[in-house]
Amino acid sequence: MTEGTGAEMTTGFDEPVTEPTSDDDVYALDRKTVAAILYAVDVDDRDKLIELMEPLHAADIADLLEQINAYDRARLIRLYDKEFDGDILSELDEAVREEVINVLRPDVLADAVRDMESDDVVDLLEDLEEPQKEAILDVLEDSERVAAEQALSYPENSAGRLMQREVVMAPEHWMVGQAIDFMRANDDLPEQFYHVVLVDPRLKPVAQVTLGKLMATRRDVPLHDIAEEEFHTIPVDQDEEDVAYAFNQYHLISAPVVDGDGRLVGVITIDDAMVVLDEEYEEDMLRLAGVSDESSLSDSVAATSKRRLPWLAVNLCTSICASLVISQFEAAIDQLVALAILMPIVASMGGNAGTQSLTVAVRALATRDLTGSNVARVIRRELLVGVLNGLCFAIVLGTVGMMWFDSPMLGVVIGSALVVNMVIAGFAGTVVPVVLDRLGVDPALASGTFVTTTTDVMGFFIFLGLASVILL
Amino acid sequence: MTEGTGAEMTTGFDEPVTEPTSDDDVYALDRKTVAAILYAVDVDDRDKLIELMEPLHAADIADLLEQINAYDRARLIRLYDKEFDGDILSELDEAVREEVINVLRPDVLADAVRDMESDDVVDLLEDLEEPQKEAILDVLEDSERVAAEQALSYPENSAGRLMQREVVMAPEHWMVGQAIDFMRANDDLPEQFYHVVLVDPRLKPVAQVTLGKLMATRRDVPLHDIAEEEFHTIPVDQDEEDVAYAFNQYHLISAPVVDGDGRLVGVITIDDAMVVLDEEYEEDMLRLAGVSDESSLSDSVAATSKRRLPWLAVNLCTSICASLVISQFEAAIDQLVALAILMPIVASMGGNAGTQSLTVAVRALATRDLTGSNVARVIRRELLVGVLNGLCFAIVLGTVGMMWFDSPMLGVVIGSALVVNMVIAGFAGTVVPVVLDRLGVDPALASGTFVTTTTDVMGFFIFLGLASVILL
Repeated sequence: MTEGTGAEMTTGFDEPVTEPTSDDDVYALDRKTVAAILYAVDVDDRDKLIELMEPLHAADIADLLEQINAYDRARLIRLYDKEFDGDILSELDEAVREEVINVLRPDVLADAVRDMESDDVVDLLEDLEEPQKEAILDVLEDSERVAAEQALSYPENSAGRLMQREVVMAPEHWMVGQAIDFMRANDDLPEQFYHVVLVDPRLKPVAQVTLGKLMATRRDVPLHDIAEEEFHTIPVDQDEEDVAYAFNQYHLISAPVVDGDGRLVGVITIDDAMVVLDEEYEEDMLRLAGVSDESSLSDSVAATSKRRLPWLAVNLCTSICASLVISQFEAAIDQLVALAILMPIVASMGGNAGTQSLTVAVRALATRDLTGSNVARVIRRELLVGVLNGLCFAIVLGTVGMMWFDSPMLGVVIGSALVVNMVIAGFAGTVVPVVLDRLGVDPALASGTFVTTTTDVMGFFIFLGLASVILL
Repeated sequence: MTEGTGAEMTTGFDEPVTEPTSDDDVYALDRKTVAAILYAVDVDDRDKLIELMEPLHAADIADLLEQINAYDRARLIRLYDKEFDGDILSELDEAVREEVINVLRPDVLADAVRDMESDDVVDLLEDLEEPQKEAILDVLEDSERVAAEQALSYPENSAGRLMQREVVMAPEHWMVGQAIDFMRANDDLPEQFYHVVLVDPRLKPVAQVTLGKLMATRRDVPLHDIAEEEFHTIPVDQDEEDVAYAFNQYHLISAPVVDGDGRLVGVITIDDAMVVLDEEYEEDMLRLAGVSDESSLSDSVAATSKRRLPWLAVNLCTSICASLVISQFEAAIDQLVALAILMPIVASMGGNAGTQSLTVAVRALATRDLTGSNVARVIRRELLVGVLNGLCFAIVLGTVGMMWFDSPMLGVVIGSALVVNMVIAGFAGTVVPVVLDRLGVDPALASGTFVTTTTDVMGFFIFLGLASVILL
């Protein structure tokens, strides 16, 4: 066994490998495999199906099930039958999962659920409707059922839902040798763990030791001497978003979870945090676009349509407001049709500039880079950027307006309106998300509407207003 | 030492903890601390500054430095002086990092860099300009310098840049006891590792053993018998985005990296993958909003302004196109000002519906849920959603148009235009990102412009066109 530092390890070759870079879809299911699997289902060839599915990871099988239509999905699951395991269930999207659970034979479902890790069962249960939930709880052994119900009693999206309840812990006064002997004697260690948590007699975690350190240290060294310098515990009721932030910010691998009295109740590992981070991002991204964050590609037409309606309805109202503003200037437009032709440009530029500021602010709030200490400076920066970019484009657009309609004053009017609207965009794009965040509303959810409404309404108002005063 | 399953561990309490949920900014730097630190800098009180900074994690100190202005930053760093360590440097944003490196005294910088892990040094070096890069390479010991230069010879954003070169490996025929003895004898184990990689005589990785399993197993068991069932290796030239995808999809904790001949050259751990995932998301989110993905909150006004210009320029061109379309219907607007008042609604609704479809598609492409096998079904779904939502809002908007301007036919015209534009939005919102992806262009980068241009232009054209034919 050798443990190489960089220099030793790479003696074998002097240049970097120059193989062709792997293509983009290196990990995606290829079309051929999907087609072969669907063909096996078509001809009812169970052996072939099992052979084709065998090399696939549960996550890939779940993706496959999400990508095919409901009819093929049901036929595939029935043919696959007893081969269907719990890991596939954990990996499935919520919408498809409920459907799959209804298609699975009860005994296959029971076997699948019994195979799952405790935190995966909780994750499965929390998304299900009552009758399906009961059906699955009934399948579990008593101790597992109690554990699952207890986990479900923690608030939704809290550390308590996310944690594994299986923890490897040791009294703080133990030696390395004692810990290793204990682990050798224990048949029931968790599948994956990265630390031994040191606890005091009241079960309060006081430190943790990485397995690598434990392994590399002589048997007679106290565990306390090799504990990690940095040590974070997570309150069981902490929001999972904060948990994910802590893992990301402090590069944690696993962290003990404590109850209100500071006693150890579980452990959260980085892979769970990564899943939360992934979900939070998806949520922010979809919310910014006005899509319900529970959307998935496997939703039905009706579900998709329903999920997108609310924000479109809000947008209809706000764009009617903008039209009301325009209608105040009916007489001006009647006199000068050029105003109707040019006004969308002012609104659109403002909307885009506002969206830029807004997205940067939403992201900075999520990563906690935008705080009370720098918000004033950020707003000042956005205003200045609005002035600068506004002036740039005012010159271009002013010239265009001037030449197109042969009216220098029209150029001046549209240029000035653009500068003002872009400054407003920078201001609204930063202030709106910050204020929503302070009010406890997710800025990703509602900022977009507020900001684009502001830039539309103000864009039309300033341009048409200035035009009425100066040109007519 | 006890290892509890859920049921044992929670005997102490029957109900979930009902403490108040922790507030949103539980991990953010609080304003008071920031103010106290800046005061210590103001009064030049080095002891106080060190005392205040002592409890802060390097990541939080980096955030603090990013949040204050350049003048305070320089004063703080000079006062903090020798206390400044390499971890802070690794955590800093690129823009601020260069500035900080220039402010640090050469010997403080040298000490800081020598403290850093090999992959952090690479991460630091790859973002720096040539003179700064040289200055830092000069500070390193010869072997570290060679290792860093070798890492930098791998393509940017490849697994080779991401990996640690320190790997713990063992010949495949070893027993558990041999592996543990080897590790005890080795002073130079990596800070963090989670697996022992089993290699054949040619240094090709064949399997890996988790430390937990190693620790829990008797000394005379062959390592091969306790190897993990699933085993992934990562090609050294693989794109880091694919690496992050594999970690996320297959729940990897660490994976060996191999060169073109399949030999072990390093290892990537989940925390590195999490950083990449974080960056990829930020990139997608900012790109969707037309902001350069290298933006940061600590950029200067000029840099920010410059980074936002390109997409605004594109938007100016596309909105001028839309205005050209409107100008074709000058006569119609001249006859009926209501058209000018209502036309932004059709365009805006289309733009929003298009953005919804687009965001879902961009996200699904990133998670590889949208593939050749389901693209036709997804497009069909988006078209149907467009029809359904279009009809809903057509009824509302048609009624509004009818009543507002007292013209039933105007209601019919705007309602019909809305349905058609929302179907176009659904189609463009899905097809544009898919086509860009196939062409090898990041769909997050360019889709937005294409889609909203389409919905603007088509929205104006259909509404004004229909109105000209039917109403005038």
